[in-house]
Amino acid sequence: MQNLLNRQVLLRSRPKGEPRISDFELVESPAPSPGEGEFLCRTIYLSLDPYMRGRMNDVKSYAQPAELGKPMVGGAVSEVIASSHPAFPTGSFVVGPTGWQAYALSRGAGMRKLDPKAAPLSTALGVLGMPGMTAYVGLLDIGQPKPGETVVVSAAAGAVGSVVGQLAKIRGCRAVGVAGAPAKCEFVVKELGFDACVNYRAEPLVPALQKACPTGIDVYFDNVGGDVLAAVLRLINPFARIPLCGLISQYNVTELPPGPNPFPLLVNRALIRGFIVSDHADRFADFHRDATQWLREGRLRYREDIVVGLENAPEAFLGLLRGRNFGKLVVRVGDDLTVKSC
Amino acid sequence: MQNLLNRQVLLRSRPKGEPRISDFELVESPAPSPGEGEFLCRTIYLSLDPYMRGRMNDVKSYAQPAELGKPMVGGAVSEVIASSHPAFPTGSFVVGPTGWQAYALSRGAGMRKLDPKAAPLSTALGVLGMPGMTAYVGLLDIGQPKPGETVVVSAAAGAVGSVVGQLAKIRGCRAVGVAGAPAKCEFVVKELGFDACVNYRAEPLVPALQKACPTGIDVYFDNVGGDVLAAVLRLINPFARIPLCGLISQYNVTELPPGPNPFPLLVNRALIRGFIVSDHADRFADFHRDATQWLREGRLRYREDIVVGLENAPEAFLGLLRGRNFGKLVVRVGDDLTVKSC
Repeated sequence: MQNLLNRQVLLRSRPKGEPRISDFELVESPAPSPGEGEFLCRTIYLSLDPYMRGRMNDVKSYAQPAELGKPMVGGAVSEVIASSHPAFPTGSFVVGPTGWQAYALSRGAGMRKLDPKAAPLSTALGVLGMPGMTAYVGLLDIGQPKPGETVVVSAAAGAVGSVVGQLAKIRGCRAVGVAGAPAKCEFVVKELGFDACVNYRAEPLVPALQKACPTGIDVYFDNVGGDVLAAVLRLINPFARIPLCGLISQYNVTELPPGPNPFPLLVNRALIRGFIVSDHADRFADFHRDATQWLREGRLRYREDIVVGLENAPEAFLGLLRGRNFGKLVVRVGDDLTVKSC
Repeated sequence: MQNLLNRQVLLRSRPKGEPRISDFELVESPAPSPGEGEFLCRTIYLSLDPYMRGRMNDVKSYAQPAELGKPMVGGAVSEVIASSHPAFPTGSFVVGPTGWQAYALSRGAGMRKLDPKAAPLSTALGVLGMPGMTAYVGLLDIGQPKPGETVVVSAAAGAVGSVVGQLAKIRGCRAVGVAGAPAKCEFVVKELGFDACVNYRAEPLVPALQKACPTGIDVYFDNVGGDVLAAVLRLINPFARIPLCGLISQYNVTELPPGPNPFPLLVNRALIRGFIVSDHADRFADFHRDATQWLREGRLRYREDIVVGLENAPEAFLGLLRGRNFGKLVVRVGDDLTVKSC
C-alpha cells in the first residue's frame, strides 16, 4: 500500500461562465492508508455529470460547493483494496462519492456495495445509478405519464434522457426526444425505441416539435431549459406536467437570462416542478428492482461514452457541458478486471 | 313581464391590448318571457373579474371566448321574477352565469340557489363565491401551507387575494400581501390581519419582500405574474409552492414578454402550478361550509367595491385591469330588496 501513487484532479479556481481546463489541476501524492474503520478505494470508473458545474460555484444551493484545492466532487465505482471496515472488505466493489481521484479513503458514508455479476460495474453510474434513478422519480413520480400521452425529453441521448424516453415507452406513451446531433437522434429512435427525435441545432423547434407531437405534449422532462422549454410551453396540453431536472443551457451563463412567460401554465393548468434526485432516496429500492429487471429483459438499453484516464476528466467535463458526449459520460480511471467475466 | 325593458352590455369588438369603452355597447330591448322549463332572472349584482379579459380574445383557452354582438359573459346574483321551472320558483335568489344584462333567461345550467338570510347576496360573487373558492383551492390544495410558513399573495386587497391572506392566518402562517396603494396595504394589515404588505408601486420589490419575509417565502399565491413573480422567485425557500391563479400584469399585452428564469425552481425543488377554479368543483361543498363558518366567526372579512348601474360596468372593468378597484368589484344592476333585512 505504501508505494501507491495517488492522482487527483483538484478544483483550482471557480469559473466565471464556462469552465476552463486551468480551473482544474492534476496532482500526485502518495495514496493514504486506511485507519480504523476506514477502507481504501481504487477508482475504476468516475462519473461526470452536469450537476458538477453547480458545485464549482460558491453559491448557496441544495449542496455544498466543492472546496478549492480539494479533489472535485463526484461519484465513482471502486474496488476496495485495503480495509479495516467489516462491511466493506478487501475485494468489494462499491459506488459512492469518492471524487476525482485514483484512490480514496472512505468510512462508508454514501457507499453502496455492487455485485459485479449482476450488471457491468459502470452501470452503477448510469442506467442503474443516479442518472437512471433521476429519470425514474422525475418521470414516474412527478411526470406521472399515462398510456397514450406524449412525453418529450431534452438531452435525449444523455444518461438521464435516454432512460426517460424508454420508461415512457414502457408506460405506453409516445416518446419524443430532443438532441443536438443527427447521430444522437438516430440512436434514440433506432436503438432505444423513441417514436421521434428533434435535432434542436438543425430545425426550428416549434414546428419540428409540433410535427413530432401531433396531439400536443403532456409531459416534458426538462434537462436543458432555455429555448427548448420555451418551445415546449407553446405546445403543452391541458394538465401537462414538467419535471424540471436540469437547466444545462444556463449552467455557464454569468447572468441568468429571462425565461419563458408562464402564461401557458395558467391556461393549461400545467405544473413545473424542480426536483433533485437525492430528495427521493426512499424510491431507490423500487427503482433498482424495476430497472434491473427491465435491463435484463432488454427493455432498457444504454450507451456509455468512456474516456480513458483521469487526466482527461477536465476536458471531458467541459465537453459534457457543450453536449459533446454521446451517452453516459464515464472516465475509466483504473482497470476494470471484472469486464472479461461479463 | 311584457313591458320590462332589458339593458345589455354587448361585446362589440375584440381589443388589441388594453380594452376600450368602445369595445362594449349598451343596448336596450324588451326583456324576454320564460318558456317551458325556463325562468326569468332580474340581475341584482353583476360580478366583474379579471378572467373576463381573456374571454374577450378569440383564442383557444380553457373556456370559449365571449361572442361578438352578445352580452358579455359573467356571473351575477339575480332574483327569479317569473318561472316555469319547478326548482327555481318566482322569488328565488340565484347566482349563475347570466352575463352583463338586467334580465336573463335560464334553464338552470350553472345556477345555484341562495339563502338571502344566510349572508348578504353579494357575497355569492366574492368571499362565498368563485373568488373565495379560488383562494381556498389554490392556497389549501395547491399551496398546502403549513403552520409557521410564510405565504405571499399578490393583488392582496382584491377578491381572491384578501381571502388567501386570511386563510393563511387561519392555517397559522405568516401572511404577506403585495398591493398597489398605501390604503390597500393598510387595509389588509389592519382590517384583515395580514402580517405585512408591500406596496409594489412605492418600493423596490426584492428588498421590501425580503424585509417582510425574514425567513423566506414558502408559498406564493400569484395573481399577477410579471415583476412580482420574478422578485418572489429570488426569495423562495426549498420546496416552495406557487399556485398560479392569474397573471393580470399580462392580460393587456399584445405580445407576451419573457418571464423569470426557472433556475430557482430547480435548486429549491419548487413547483409552479396553474389552476382554474372550475376544475375543482368537487371542493365547493367543503369551501362553502368552511367559509360560511369563518365568516360568521369573524375570521374571514371582506370588502366590496360596488359600482352602481350596468352602464358603468365597462369603465369599472377597465379600472379593474389597472388595479383601481379596492375590494371585490361588483356592479349593482338592480335593487337589492334583501339589504334592509340583513
